[in-house]
Amino acid sequence: MDTIEIRRRIRTGEHTGPTSGISGDKVQANLAILPKKYAFDFLLFAMRNNKPVPIIEVLEAGEYVSRYAKDSDIRTDVPLYNIYKDGELVETVDDITSYWQDDFVTFLIGCSFTFEQAILDAGINIKHIDQGRNVAMYKTNIETESAGIFHGNTVVSMRPFKKELVDQVIDITNDFPNMHGGPVHVGDPSAIGINNIDQPDYGDAIEIGEGEVPVFWACGVTPQNVVLNAKPEILISHAPGHMFITDINNEEYKK
Amino acid sequence: MDTIEIRRRIRTGEHTGPTSGISGDKVQANLAILPKKYAFDFLLFAMRNNKPVPIIEVLEAGEYVSRYAKDSDIRTDVPLYNIYKDGELVETVDDITSYWQDDFVTFLIGCSFTFEQAILDAGINIKHIDQGRNVAMYKTNIETESAGIFHGNTVVSMRPFKKELVDQVIDITNDFPNMHGGPVHVGDPSAIGINNIDQPDYGDAIEIGEGEVPVFWACGVTPQNVVLNAKPEILISHAPGHMFITDINNEEYKK
Repeated sequence: MDTIEIRRRIRTGEHTGPTSGISGDKVQANLAILPKKYAFDFLLFAMRNNKPVPIIEVLEAGEYVSRYAKDSDIRTDVPLYNIYKDGELVETVDDITSYWQDDFVTFLIGCSFTFEQAILDAGINIKHIDQGRNVAMYKTNIETESAGIFHGNTVVSMRPFKKELVDQVIDITNDFPNMHGGPVHVGDPSAIGINNIDQPDYGDAIEIGEGEVPVFWACGVTPQNVVLNAKPEILISHAPGHMFITDINNEEYKK
Repeated sequence: MDTIEIRRRIRTGEHTGPTSGISGDKVQANLAILPKKYAFDFLLFAMRNNKPVPIIEVLEAGEYVSRYAKDSDIRTDVPLYNIYKDGELVETVDDITSYWQDDFVTFLIGCSFTFEQAILDAGINIKHIDQGRNVAMYKTNIETESAGIFHGNTVVSMRPFKKELVDQVIDITNDFPNMHGGPVHVGDPSAIGINNIDQPDYGDAIEIGEGEVPVFWACGVTPQNVVLNAKPEILISHAPGHMFITDINNEEYKK
């Protein structure tokens, strides 16, 4: 199925679920929509923290068509949106047309699905995918570099791999420097402030088996977390796992 | 002489001239200072046009100390500043303290001095430097990607090289992707809208000798040109050739 058709199905409500695995080799994006008065601080935050916040595209105030997604409409083409007001989740909706403001600036942010596909293409299994779960995500003590009103710590995603595969996995993800890149930490969770690996802050827990090593990547949930700290009057993001699907090939982000 | 001492001499008026060649292997930067209300559009413009507008650092509203220049003060540490109001040059001064506003955002932008040093280090002469002139710069028909109120064409710098050296020069400058990178054009000036190579729009004319080829790079004058098109109530930039000297080694920008 081509991406135009996938977006049409999402827009019309034929597809309402998570988007993992439905777009083949096409880039999926995290979404953050903010009023323009916050846009400079956010873009500067992204520039200073490229690993957790790799910007794919910025839609200027009032724009809702992505240049990387033919005939798209950012107000309708994500399966589920979270609406946050003053830092609190107030509603989850499948269409934000009624919330739209002419001063909304939209940021499309890289997603780990891109490097996960490259890991799978190398013939390496990813445990949470095999088990049909969401990836495990944790708040850490790794500080981001603040910008304007935005500051806070990095959120990471964790995937366990057999010890002998870790170097290869690191190499594969290093090849996508603008899609979170290589891991920010390998091994002992407590070294980055994670006290209980069995209780992720977001997503689903995953067992670390005998001979497996936990590997941690900067995660696209970081900007959402950091923005909510600042309690803007409104932030719209995708609901976890419910991404915006572009027409860009994952390979275009390979260095 | 170390960079702290050079900046001190500039601050106290002991050094008032151009900065070409005075900072050894340290990065020199173009300067653009704008009120915060223009900062998002400018940063987005830079992101979309990394070749002419490679951002080294952003100083947030009211900040005047560069983190890449110890004990610096951006209000005094550039030998000469141009003050533009509503798109017109109104004054050239050696200190902008009296113009300073708490909402001023400062952008430090990469400069071709970095790749010129790498060309010289390879034992290749650069003609305008040998002749003690400023580089020749031209308006072109190469469009930038607009952002908000900022739009316009690319300004290029031109350096002639013997035909047999051109490939090497291209390779050297390609190694500095965040300092204008490789050339945007090689050869026939009319192909990029330059009708009279003997009459540059900025800087000094330079003769293209027998067996020499003109090579064109995206130039840091582009953002100044583009900002002035938009006629903001105030823009402060360095005067041409009078740059801000950082403590960063040029080599750190080599890929």
